[in-house]
Amino acid sequence: MNNTHPTITKTRVTAMPGDGIGPEVFDATRRIFEAANAPIEWEIAEAGAEAFKKNIPSGAPRETLDSIARNGLALKGPLETPVGYGAKSANVTLRKHFELYANIRPVRELPGIKTPFTGRGIDMVIVRENVEDVYAGIEHMQTPDVAQCLKLMTRPGCERIIRAAFGLALAEDRKKLTCATKANIMKLTEGMMKRVFEQVGPEYPSIAQDHIIIDNCAHQLVIAPEQFDVIVTSNMNGDIISDLAAGLVGGLGIAPSANLGDHAAIFEAVHGSAPQIAGKGLANPTALLSAAIMMLRHIGAFETAATIEQALFITLAEGENLTGDLSPRGHGVGTDKFVGQIIDNLGRSSNLASREYRPLHLTPWPNLTAHTEPKSRELIGVDVFIESDLSAADLGDSLTKIAEGSALRLDSISNRGVQVWPSTGGQTFLVDHFDCRFMLLTPAEGNVPQGIADLVGKIGQNHAWMHVEKLQRFDGKDAFERPQGEG
Amino acid sequence: MNNTHPTITKTRVTAMPGDGIGPEVFDATRRIFEAANAPIEWEIAEAGAEAFKKNIPSGAPRETLDSIARNGLALKGPLETPVGYGAKSANVTLRKHFELYANIRPVRELPGIKTPFTGRGIDMVIVRENVEDVYAGIEHMQTPDVAQCLKLMTRPGCERIIRAAFGLALAEDRKKLTCATKANIMKLTEGMMKRVFEQVGPEYPSIAQDHIIIDNCAHQLVIAPEQFDVIVTSNMNGDIISDLAAGLVGGLGIAPSANLGDHAAIFEAVHGSAPQIAGKGLANPTALLSAAIMMLRHIGAFETAATIEQALFITLAEGENLTGDLSPRGHGVGTDKFVGQIIDNLGRSSNLASREYRPLHLTPWPNLTAHTEPKSRELIGVDVFIESDLSAADLGDSLTKIAEGSALRLDSISNRGVQVWPSTGGQTFLVDHFDCRFMLLTPAEGNVPQGIADLVGKIGQNHAWMHVEKLQRFDGKDAFERPQGEG
Repeated sequence: MNNTHPTITKTRVTAMPGDGIGPEVFDATRRIFEAANAPIEWEIAEAGAEAFKKNIPSGAPRETLDSIARNGLALKGPLETPVGYGAKSANVTLRKHFELYANIRPVRELPGIKTPFTGRGIDMVIVRENVEDVYAGIEHMQTPDVAQCLKLMTRPGCERIIRAAFGLALAEDRKKLTCATKANIMKLTEGMMKRVFEQVGPEYPSIAQDHIIIDNCAHQLVIAPEQFDVIVTSNMNGDIISDLAAGLVGGLGIAPSANLGDHAAIFEAVHGSAPQIAGKGLANPTALLSAAIMMLRHIGAFETAATIEQALFITLAEGENLTGDLSPRGHGVGTDKFVGQIIDNLGRSSNLASREYRPLHLTPWPNLTAHTEPKSRELIGVDVFIESDLSAADLGDSLTKIAEGSALRLDSISNRGVQVWPSTGGQTFLVDHFDCRFMLLTPAEGNVPQGIADLVGKIGQNHAWMHVEKLQRFDGKDAFERPQGEG
Repeated sequence: MNNTHPTITKTRVTAMPGDGIGPEVFDATRRIFEAANAPIEWEIAEAGAEAFKKNIPSGAPRETLDSIARNGLALKGPLETPVGYGAKSANVTLRKHFELYANIRPVRELPGIKTPFTGRGIDMVIVRENVEDVYAGIEHMQTPDVAQCLKLMTRPGCERIIRAAFGLALAEDRKKLTCATKANIMKLTEGMMKRVFEQVGPEYPSIAQDHIIIDNCAHQLVIAPEQFDVIVTSNMNGDIISDLAAGLVGGLGIAPSANLGDHAAIFEAVHGSAPQIAGKGLANPTALLSAAIMMLRHIGAFETAATIEQALFITLAEGENLTGDLSPRGHGVGTDKFVGQIIDNLGRSSNLASREYRPLHLTPWPNLTAHTEPKSRELIGVDVFIESDLSAADLGDSLTKIAEGSALRLDSISNRGVQVWPSTGGQTFLVDHFDCRFMLLTPAEGNVPQGIADLVGKIGQNHAWMHVEKLQRFDGKDAFERPQGEG
């Protein structure tokens, strides 16, 4: 069919069929796209298990990265990290390499897919920040028994994802954006996302806006999912609630996903490689096909997207020739027959209309190191994290003496966030990881480290420190939180 | 009725009725307990809004803490943090002060409470680690735009909660314990919980054991919740999935919770203070009553617990005189009539049997600073986190020169976990927060800081560092993770 419309300008897309059932669901998608004359030209590329087995530790060969960089668009099947190969997943590699900061997860009740929530009209999109948070993967053993992961959130990172979510709401004519955070506990990191949401929100007056605590969000998603329209959230929270929400409408087997950035966009199925049915012609291609439909809309091919989506919807609604996982009476057919049925239905419309879409605009960010200079800076102290098997009282005595005559004094010691020196009388269980807070006797303007370097040097003669954090003030405000129990 | 059984030994319990509807649901619980001759004597204590308004920043007065320490047992209604008072919640204060490390959240389908999952026999317990993880609340602004929260997990902390979960499975005659983590991404922190689970598990051969990734767990909880028996997980994950799971069986309005530690146990309703109906006699006391039933079992009063639980179950099943939120036809009664109905039903049995319970044994931990000395230690480098608006290339050049002639060399620079120097060709968006990794030319035995202190001092003359992490090796293994993109 390619040759019947030789004058259509085609968009070149990197296709990573992936592992397990990946090649089958990609082939199904390609057949349907050809039948619908979708204006796409595929450039096949390798990623996942085969790459790992060639000792490419990222799971994504250079040629694949180059292809995506060239095309700016990719469709990706499930990628495996084979046991014993590679420390990182190829999925994470691609996300980070191309700075695909926005993960878009539509969650819509589909015709014919029965769930406990059928009939309630679930139709939402979860917009998950995709590169920051605990996924930076910065972990250090503080002591042989204490592990630390840095949860990093940035103002530019929050602003980008929040603007992407507002942009998506506008592009899909949605009415409400809900920001889900744990700002009540993590006032600086998760709180930053809430604050940026409140700062940026007034620029989008046509979108209703509210904030919800993430645990309540998870609760509300099973109690009253129809209340949500668009949800924006941080990476780890979004990981959990997007999979939760997919479960409300039928599961990961039919869930599509887009990963968007300024330089590239990768569309993918959320499900795994299902090795137990791979190669048997039984795989359900709905998720990858739905991701490919998102891709068509991303390049502005709205009509073709709607044609294919309607053919999928009516096929699901009529229930003829569905794959086994979708078949209500367990009379499943193979991938081939399901694809044929969808192709036969091209041009028909289902009772469930496709949404009206407009182009999505992402706010580009200048290609500089993002930096805001505060009006004032002060350095007021330092947290020195020490490995010790001493009691809190003995450690407090020792550090008080060490600080004598220095530019700082010992202020408090906490253990996993609870103040243990001076004692507040709590029954804190102590691990060998003490956060020892020293305050400068005279706060310094700027970022002057010498008194701190001297103190840390002296501490190191008696105690094993492994981690140091300056205590700063920006624009006259403390740039750190106080431990539980501190006045 | 108190006087009819004067010889029963009563257990004294600190009661914090709390805010909003708290006093009403506590009074309801007390009436039912009296009618059932439950062997409890209440010691009323203050916590929450009233305490905050008296300028007690923790929300828990000294007398309340003393009462709980004396009794070792407490029942708690909802506590508010009034806007403008207190930076920390009283709930968190109590948890941390008494090191209540195990949060127990039973999730069971109740008679008469209709949900989309009714009839599937959901009956699980979520065991959430309650004091570690991002809840340590250790946050530092790294730069004016970059916030950091430390996610801390410890081997003793993991072992305690995992043994508590196994203990609970044994006490409730449950068959399977599922450990839910994000070990695939956070190999040191979340991975520690998985490793400890696998180490400790063989000591409990009668309990089936498996591991699930937390996002899949959230997915499975809405797809097939009946597959779960007991789930153990870290603090933030558990916060989200316990509220999710409560939603499957009717919501937070009926969800009880226990917070257990070596020195005290606090039982509570999960719901909020519902100020909009407070004082109107309309509140549903099911959650606090259910928490109080958990408390009876905790002190071994299994028969009284079952009597009250059966009266509650049959009241819910028969649907007569329920509060408005529970009433299927919207014909709700007040708290008083609902309580009367439960009291009238004391002695009757419902079709839903109470589980068989045995005493729960928590493994006590010695009251020392937990510490494991590795067989070997090496110091091999240091991560210096620097605020800079330079490009990665310029910063790399500068730091390479600064390190010349020192005991260390610049190895790599990453930005939010992605290597940006030497460049890997990725399109990383840069924030002004660079993790600059220096390796010692000659690895040092022990924890020798002088070369590092010297280098950090030199860096401080040219760049603004705010955070330093030593790179250690314990027992011959790297005690840190490598950034994405590094070999």
